[in-house]
Amino acid sequence: MSLLPDWLRNYRRAWLGGDITAGLIVTVMLIPQSLAYAMLAGLLPQVGLYASVLPLFAYALFGTSMTLAVGPVAVASLMTATALAPIAAAGSADYVALSVMLALLSGTLLFAAGLLRLGFIAYFLSHPVISGFISGSAVLITIGQLKSLLGVKLPSGSVVATLSALPAALPNANPVTAGIGVSALLFLWFARKYLAALLKAAGMPGRAADLAARLAPMAAVIAGTAYVAATGADQTAGVSIVGAVPAGLPSLALPSVTWKATGELLLPALLISLIGFVESVSVAQSLALKSGQRIDPNRELLGIGAANIASAFSGGYPVTGGFARSVVNFSAGAHTPAAGVISAALMGLVIAGMTGWFHYLPHSVLAATIIIAVTALIDIDTLKEAWQYDKADALSLVLTFCGVLLLGVEEGILLGVALSLAVLVWRSSHPHMAVVGRVPGSEHFRNIDRHKAETLPGLIALRVDESLYFANARMLEDKVETLVRTHPDTVCILLIMSAVNQLDATALGMLTELEKSLAARNIVLQFSEIKGPVLDRLRSTPLGRRMKDRIFLSTHQAFVAFAGSHTLPHDTASESPPWSLTH
Amino acid sequence: MSLLPDWLRNYRRAWLGGDITAGLIVTVMLIPQSLAYAMLAGLLPQVGLYASVLPLFAYALFGTSMTLAVGPVAVASLMTATALAPIAAAGSADYVALSVMLALLSGTLLFAAGLLRLGFIAYFLSHPVISGFISGSAVLITIGQLKSLLGVKLPSGSVVATLSALPAALPNANPVTAGIGVSALLFLWFARKYLAALLKAAGMPGRAADLAARLAPMAAVIAGTAYVAATGADQTAGVSIVGAVPAGLPSLALPSVTWKATGELLLPALLISLIGFVESVSVAQSLALKSGQRIDPNRELLGIGAANIASAFSGGYPVTGGFARSVVNFSAGAHTPAAGVISAALMGLVIAGMTGWFHYLPHSVLAATIIIAVTALIDIDTLKEAWQYDKADALSLVLTFCGVLLLGVEEGILLGVALSLAVLVWRSSHPHMAVVGRVPGSEHFRNIDRHKAETLPGLIALRVDESLYFANARMLEDKVETLVRTHPDTVCILLIMSAVNQLDATALGMLTELEKSLAARNIVLQFSEIKGPVLDRLRSTPLGRRMKDRIFLSTHQAFVAFAGSHTLPHDTASESPPWSLTH
Repeated sequence: MSLLPDWLRNYRRAWLGGDITAGLIVTVMLIPQSLAYAMLAGLLPQVGLYASVLPLFAYALFGTSMTLAVGPVAVASLMTATALAPIAAAGSADYVALSVMLALLSGTLLFAAGLLRLGFIAYFLSHPVISGFISGSAVLITIGQLKSLLGVKLPSGSVVATLSALPAALPNANPVTAGIGVSALLFLWFARKYLAALLKAAGMPGRAADLAARLAPMAAVIAGTAYVAATGADQTAGVSIVGAVPAGLPSLALPSVTWKATGELLLPALLISLIGFVESVSVAQSLALKSGQRIDPNRELLGIGAANIASAFSGGYPVTGGFARSVVNFSAGAHTPAAGVISAALMGLVIAGMTGWFHYLPHSVLAATIIIAVTALIDIDTLKEAWQYDKADALSLVLTFCGVLLLGVEEGILLGVALSLAVLVWRSSHPHMAVVGRVPGSEHFRNIDRHKAETLPGLIALRVDESLYFANARMLEDKVETLVRTHPDTVCILLIMSAVNQLDATALGMLTELEKSLAARNIVLQFSEIKGPVLDRLRSTPLGRRMKDRIFLSTHQAFVAFAGSHTLPHDTASESPPWSLTH
Repeated sequence: MSLLPDWLRNYRRAWLGGDITAGLIVTVMLIPQSLAYAMLAGLLPQVGLYASVLPLFAYALFGTSMTLAVGPVAVASLMTATALAPIAAAGSADYVALSVMLALLSGTLLFAAGLLRLGFIAYFLSHPVISGFISGSAVLITIGQLKSLLGVKLPSGSVVATLSALPAALPNANPVTAGIGVSALLFLWFARKYLAALLKAAGMPGRAADLAARLAPMAAVIAGTAYVAATGADQTAGVSIVGAVPAGLPSLALPSVTWKATGELLLPALLISLIGFVESVSVAQSLALKSGQRIDPNRELLGIGAANIASAFSGGYPVTGGFARSVVNFSAGAHTPAAGVISAALMGLVIAGMTGWFHYLPHSVLAATIIIAVTALIDIDTLKEAWQYDKADALSLVLTFCGVLLLGVEEGILLGVALSLAVLVWRSSHPHMAVVGRVPGSEHFRNIDRHKAETLPGLIALRVDESLYFANARMLEDKVETLVRTHPDTVCILLIMSAVNQLDATALGMLTELEKSLAARNIVLQFSEIKGPVLDRLRSTPLGRRMKDRIFLSTHQAFVAFAGSHTLPHDTASESPPWSLTH
């Protein structure tokens, strides 16, 4: 790995136009989003700006996606608020220091995971669980923003508490705040739904119209700010505004946080890292596929990790790759992370000289921006698909969603992971098993319950359609014992292992016991179609050595050998093997 | 199910001799063990006797094993002590009430699990994890008994604390106590190792000698009691003795325990139930196999559950099927649970009139009994076998063992379960995948890296040797993308699904995306050898419908179709398909 990233060493002048356009457009999206998400995280709006400069440079150096737009995102902001709420009061100096520490911990965890090449860990979250988690978070965020949107006081302990207090609180809403907020919300909803189509109908080229529609939040911010500045509604009507935002980045320094508080942040940091990384890699991968590029999950860990460490050093909070901005970056023509570098430079200029412009920005407009952004993340399609395809996956999704809403963000994701694993174990613990026979006139063997198939009296051929391991080993043992009891004439059990990809020590122990216990009853255990890697390991075990003459390459060979070597009770010197046809 | 259990309705007079002999011998083993294990649980010795009457009747009514000997066992006793230590002082009235509640909770959980037919849950503990747990518990118990064995004061917080205090404490040991304890230990060790052989050499029949050797603990109890009673060592030398044991069962009543304490007991009760059930079913199953009988795990849940509820109602504590006593019961000729009923009746007589006999029984003899019993449970063989066969399983065993010793009993078993699951996910998250080609002149397809096999230019046939689900879906995606990049002439990817037993929603989503993204690059995705159950579900999805003409029954058919339909770059109108031979 050279010191300069690949994209920079091989940079082509032809890419510059696209990168500059994309950088500009993403910046215009990033300004309102970074202010709004910082507010969602319980931080001052400028912290969102701080988290939008150095992290973008850091990602450009270490990441592998050409189009991922890094910075503050909704879910990580919610998780930050959730993590810090029990430890410090929102807005306090401690709270700010802890949010910086959270970014540092997340960054360090991600970077370390990247060095250890643990990128595959992200795959342990199933798609339905992620979908349920994101949808749940989106609903949680929306409900949490109602108080800023409408200018009412609402309890923020739980979703139930907030919603049940809403009807009584509504009449006390600040009418001007609510008016601004609801107007912004309607405008943004209209823009998302119809603006691109209107612009196209008015003759604007398709892609330009789509991009222009993405700038609606900036328009809402400008309009809202102008309205309050012009009417003085902050003074006359008590509209809550952003207020004075200091210019310049805070000095690069690490927060002083106690060891105890740092310890309490570890689990949240781990969960934020995990979710942030999964979100980021999903977006990066789906965009990379569109342009035939590749994402290296381990390098992505380094990239997102470096971005978070950079965020910590510049007074920011946890960041990751955002969905909406990355998509816009891609469609605006970004070729390389140069687009991100340009965004970062522009954000730097905003921080250096333009923070005064946000003074009159109403919080209710930011709340509207957040709500419109996160409701787009609510994902009903995945639930519908999962419901049709796989009820257990759908159930994991719904339970994760409910867990996030009712138990909390961290509890929800942990519940989701536990559910994924439970479903996995549950599935493979009930393996499909079939007694098979020969399809007449062929060397094919099929389930005798489904097909006309020939069996040999005394031989039971059982196919196991699952890897054998601790959670299902006894199911197989039970099945064999049941078969032996219901077929008292059995002299041979043939296990067809074509679908057994793994055989763990528990399953090996079970087979060893089973072989002995069958032998004591004069029943021979045989195997067929064992896979190479499984057979290699089986051969070196006592069971493998004892059975070495009873392992057949194919089921057909095992049947032929059995027919040839057994004098069967009703053997009448027939020339053909004594097949008996089932069904 | 009739009101009377099967074994009683069909009872044959011929069985009575064996059942009586077994019942007697087991009682002689059970008396010292029940006293000792109650001490291990932090309870008065008589509680062990209480737990050895009604539970045996209850199991005889509900269980399915003909030879399982139910009652106090070492591991459940240790777990009881661990569960209660943080809530109440050992020996206090609260402690006793909580131990009864623990039995009631365990019993109710087990009985409910039996009614819900959840017997398969026991299989979720892998054999190496159980082995590591039992061995760790055995070492923990041995170290914990040193203070009673030697008559020294030792801190009991952790293994490390106990062992590091031992050298300094040893000189302060009570010499008479230590003398009795060590003598008993040596005698019991000698008896276990050599007595049966000696008796056989002296002309005793083999089985009788084996059984007689099992009675050594009773002999040690009698000798130790007689010695203290004769010498008055309890008064003169301060030897700790059992003391006055009230006669009679406590009145049948449930303890008064607060809801809060009950809540704290739930997790321990769950773990005791799980471990107790797993132990019990393993013993019952291995004995049943020897005599060609069957164990129904769900009925076993009812049996062990009923035994624990009965234990609670008679002032006892958690019980389960014990290993050593069950084996003796079996070899002493028990035919039916009548043997257990006889033991229970005899234990009832002991409680009614013979408790005075235990007055002078030294605690150090009980400690020696416990140590000899549990050291037999330390299992090195499973570690050796697992190490040779499967390093990951061996690691789970060692970590569970260390977890029990260093973190605690409950933490150890939870760690073990987590490790089992992690190993399971880790294994299937790195599936074996092979690019295959045709074995010349056949319809067989093999790994082109291992075998001489023919491929078709433009077609990559990839076999996945694992079920596809969330933890490995992206590995497949990565593999396909890498293949496409390294083979730029690819026009078709054929996935051979013969080993895919499951396909979850995440994997389905990945395949759906992959198909689209390949199509955008003019690469066709095809499937072959999809299993029936997987295909049934795939057919109803959008992916299944889109691909319905690209799913081949056999890989051979897919190859033939490809060769027939593609005009290949170097097609020179040859008559045979343009196979290209690898290697």
